[in-house]
Amino acid sequence: MPQLRKDPILGRWVIISTERAKRPEDFSKPISNPPEKECPFCEGRENLTPGEIFSIKDSQGKWRVRVVSAKKPFLQKEGQLWKKGKGPYDLINGVGSHEIIIETPYHIANIADLDESQIKDVLSTYCIRFREIEKDPLIKYVLIFKNYGWGAGGGTVRHARSQLIATPVNLKRVKEELEGAKFYYDYHERCVFCDIIQQELSDGSRVVLENDNFVVLVPFAPRFPFEVWILPKKHSPDFYKICDGNVLELAKILKQTLLKMKILLNDPHYNYIIHTAPFRRPYPGYWSTIEEDYHWHIEITPHLTRVAGFEWGSGFYICPALPEETAKFLREKNV
Amino acid sequence: MPQLRKDPILGRWVIISTERAKRPEDFSKPISNPPEKECPFCEGRENLTPGEIFSIKDSQGKWRVRVVSAKKPFLQKEGQLWKKGKGPYDLINGVGSHEIIIETPYHIANIADLDESQIKDVLSTYCIRFREIEKDPLIKYVLIFKNYGWGAGGGTVRHARSQLIATPVNLKRVKEELEGAKFYYDYHERCVFCDIIQQELSDGSRVVLENDNFVVLVPFAPRFPFEVWILPKKHSPDFYKICDGNVLELAKILKQTLLKMKILLNDPHYNYIIHTAPFRRPYPGYWSTIEEDYHWHIEITPHLTRVAGFEWGSGFYICPALPEETAKFLREKNV
Repeated sequence: MPQLRKDPILGRWVIISTERAKRPEDFSKPISNPPEKECPFCEGRENLTPGEIFSIKDSQGKWRVRVVSAKKPFLQKEGQLWKKGKGPYDLINGVGSHEIIIETPYHIANIADLDESQIKDVLSTYCIRFREIEKDPLIKYVLIFKNYGWGAGGGTVRHARSQLIATPVNLKRVKEELEGAKFYYDYHERCVFCDIIQQELSDGSRVVLENDNFVVLVPFAPRFPFEVWILPKKHSPDFYKICDGNVLELAKILKQTLLKMKILLNDPHYNYIIHTAPFRRPYPGYWSTIEEDYHWHIEITPHLTRVAGFEWGSGFYICPALPEETAKFLREKNV
Repeated sequence: MPQLRKDPILGRWVIISTERAKRPEDFSKPISNPPEKECPFCEGRENLTPGEIFSIKDSQGKWRVRVVSAKKPFLQKEGQLWKKGKGPYDLINGVGSHEIIIETPYHIANIADLDESQIKDVLSTYCIRFREIEKDPLIKYVLIFKNYGWGAGGGTVRHARSQLIATPVNLKRVKEELEGAKFYYDYHERCVFCDIIQQELSDGSRVVLENDNFVVLVPFAPRFPFEVWILPKKHSPDFYKICDGNVLELAKILKQTLLKMKILLNDPHYNYIIHTAPFRRPYPGYWSTIEEDYHWHIEITPHLTRVAGFEWGSGFYICPALPEETAKFLREKNV
């Protein structure tokens, strides 16, 4: 059973993944790029994945998007949640869930290469899973993310998929963002993300793409070269409450953004993460303005530099590219 | 001139490194491992580095440890500090300093391979630079770290060296650690690090090495496999106030730890970072208990897994190794 352990200084929860644990000896073997295995995510090989949780089917009854449990889950569904202390330490057993969202029945690696209606189905699937998992009172947060390419933690099978982790605790990163947004709101009585959007649209130098309801920009203080954020122009804390009419527009701008990265940056490995408010807003007073102060968005980080080491451990970032230049490059080059 | 830009949501400062900035086009080239260049850090090539700031010499007047300015500094010494706002954004020009501590005149890559008295001189040099830079009222924090191997951001020249960055702002990571330590102290009226040391020494399962004044342990909730911390047993917030008598003991245990990693884990790339309290303790009341609540230490993180991507962007860590097993492995295998 995996464990969630809390760092007693920073209050950061870490998953100790027993299902994926390697023996200490195994870490001394050099890291190699193993050959691609038979793809378990392709149409016709449904028996190679654990039980199906959800699917979207076409008019012939064939699946278009399919959600399954992870084979080696970070967190497990079974069992009662327990919380324990030991001296200065806190731990929780790894109850929660870990799902894989298979984005296409075909063996296509990059979501950027799917057509817009297929990407729309993927995004709709995210929303449907959010709504379903919200019903479980044990779950505090749902994190949806994509690891594309092994450099981004994506494994060796090149079939487009995203991951969903439902956790019984609120993640430190999420708390920090909520607290930061609230801190700004308490002073200005405006959403910091709304202010950023307004500033960026009037300034223009860091805008990459724009349509009626969404804007894509390079943030003012990016951690990584070519980091981009996709934000809805209309204020909303919850990704999964996006109205149906806007999902296709989001799919279009996501595809355009990722396609620009793929073509202009030589198919980089990347991650994207959906940043959305937690379901439970448990501390009256504390997160009481969350409806007004938090604004969902998607953060995309391509992996273009080797210099990961120091930033990894320190949380201190040095970005070797000017945000205005990377934005201009992505904005002006057509693909 | 480099810039320091603040993320308006998280309050995290990012260095936009103009000295090292690449053109957007250059990021699309595949990352390759360029051949080692002529080493500018070896004895006899002193003219290849910018001006010497400090050195420790032997009785014949030959240098043993040498501190120079970085050729492409993240932050620059020249110029007045200015702070500006633009809409929701804050920026500071990149005033500060960036120094390279050359740890040996010989072409040796890993500090683990230097002898103990040489490592002692390196650690003493850190302390001397801390004390000197403390005098500059513009500087809020000094970060000393090592990137060993390109996987850890160490560049292509394989000559043992560390880096020092002096910043005009307090780093978010440092603030978080200070706040976490204070939060624990406010409740318990005890230092969280002292409590951790006591817990670990009585439990024993995560202890790697120990001598009279220091303990090396795998933390309870590590971010990475084989992450280890070196802590002084006696409470002290400031690394650079370590008494001379203890520097050799620290050098010995640092060498032993890194040598175990080198031999048992196949010479992994790694980072270490000195975690110490800031010089200025500016907010009366706010950090007023820092003398009692904060405890300097060194964090070492080897790079043994490819799965960096997701953790990189999310601040949410999944560790595929049991801390008790990695500690046992490092503790029991002799090198």
